Amino acid sequence: MTAEVIDGVACAASIESSLQIRIDSLKQQGIIPHLAVVIVGEDPASHVYVRAKQRACERLGINSTRIDLPEETSFEQLAEIVQDLNTDDSVHGILVQSPLPNGINELAITDMIEPSKDVDGFHPVNLGRLVQSRDDGQIPCTPYGVMELLHWAGIELTGKRAVVIGRSFNVGMSQALLLAQKGADATVTIVHSKTQNPEEVCKEADILIAAVGVPEMVLASWIKPGAVVIDVGVNRVEDSSKERGYRLAGDVHPDVADVASALSPVPGGVGPMTIAMLMSNTVRSSEKKL
Amino acid sequence: MTAEVIDGVACAASIESSLQIRIDSLKQQGIIPHLAVVIVGEDPASHVYVRAKQRACERLGINSTRIDLPEETSFEQLAEIVQDLNTDDSVHGILVQSPLPNGINELAITDMIEPSKDVDGFHPVNLGRLVQSRDDGQIPCTPYGVMELLHWAGIELTGKRAVVIGRSFNVGMSQALLLAQKGADATVTIVHSKTQNPEEVCKEADILIAAVGVPEMVLASWIKPGAVVIDVGVNRVEDSSKERGYRLAGDVHPDVADVASALSPVPGGVGPMTIAMLMSNTVRSSEKKL
Repeated sequence: MTAEVIDGVACAASIESSLQIRIDSLKQQGIIPHLAVVIVGEDPASHVYVRAKQRACERLGINSTRIDLPEETSFEQLAEIVQDLNTDDSVHGILVQSPLPNGINELAITDMIEPSKDVDGFHPVNLGRLVQSRDDGQIPCTPYGVMELLHWAGIELTGKRAVVIGRSFNVGMSQALLLAQKGADATVTIVHSKTQNPEEVCKEADILIAAVGVPEMVLASWIKPGAVVIDVGVNRVEDSSKERGYRLAGDVHPDVADVASALSPVPGGVGPMTIAMLMSNTVRSSEKKL
Repeated sequence: MTAEVIDGVACAASIESSLQIRIDSLKQQGIIPHLAVVIVGEDPASHVYVRAKQRACERLGINSTRIDLPEETSFEQLAEIVQDLNTDDSVHGILVQSPLPNGINELAITDMIEPSKDVDGFHPVNLGRLVQSRDDGQIPCTPYGVMELLHWAGIELTGKRAVVIGRSFNVGMSQALLLAQKGADATVTIVHSKTQNPEEVCKEADILIAAVGVPEMVLASWIKPGAVVIDVGVNRVEDSSKERGYRLAGDVHPDVADVASALSPVPGGVGPMTIAMLMSNTVRSSEKKL
């Protein structure tokens, strides 16, 4: 078997098309969606991500403000900027790019973002609404993107066994909640670093979501033949044959394509979906101003 | 095999003993823990629960205020009472007894409770902190009680397969998050009404938590020999041989005792633990005033 490719680029493009209509309608009503992105320090990967988010805004005609702060920014300085953005009526979405430099408590900064403007979906009020299966919050972009990708690819979830590898609050745990809630209706198992025999547990999965951050950890032998595999990992692996000195690898080994029925690639799978859902959250937040 | 009984009454008594020391210390420092319970209407089971909570307060020397409101109370009237309790510095815990009469949006009332006084742990900010594995929130009393009961009974969780039946926000989903988070480290599966072959999935469990609300649904044939079973269900089943016309039944069939290594009874298992954890949350909230 060679797995069908679940094309995140195409799915993201389709989502952006439908967002475009909503953005045009907002503009006709005098509202220009506006995302503010705050980046602290010089982490190269963060700069790549922020640039990609700005490009998506440009593509869709969403205003974007980028606030670059030096590595030595204090917690108080960053907090003041967040408060200013909270009270700025022209701003509909606020994103503070993770990771923040050591010494700045990232959760405390997230707690300060006005929940309706929290387009990352990381504020506890928004995560709690996920637990409550409510639809009036902001959903974290990556697991939200995975749900949209599965839906777009026509993958049936109801009653299926889904396994999520990873238990971060913004991916693994949120993904498990989204898959288990009413309407999605998968039977979900959360696998993590303390799981005994993860390969056996993963082999139960009709749908496997890998979000561990370990390059190519999920092997073909972990996959039930015909399973659907979504690779959330984006890992930099040294590669001297590349000009930049590294290649991007997912959490899933390429050989999985021989066993799975469908597989999202890295890059070109969940990555573009994460950005599309950030745009979607920003548009949603803007529409609340109508 | 006849399962060892996991005695919730004894465990709750042990928790209350250690709370007593903290309450005495609070009083020496001039703080009397104070729980306000609001009950709307005449639901008989709710009145039984509220009375049990008041009795626990009396036992421990926690001040309790009970506010009884008529069935026809409006949302606005209830909201005003909650706001008053939020701003009353002598009140450390607020509990609005569920269910509320039809016509009052229960989630909207929960959203209004000051999170630090939300001793039920139902506010989205507190549920979101669970997703984030933070320890600065209030944890919903029933799943918190189950964790304490498992710990007290010496049940090892790390790397074990745990299955939670039920996906309510305040029991099933919260229980799954607690079992999966760092420190607990179980490999958790969430089973619900759309799960195919629930008996097969449950049979994978080393630890099974039943929180469905269907009397005696979990049969002996669903249990892996030697598994630990925690019965969260409290169901009223018609029984003409009883003076009150009903008996209490759990979600777990009594025959499970022949297969499990340990089993919490109904009544006398999770019920007293829920109340003990409500007292614990109230004491914790009071200690923040120090």
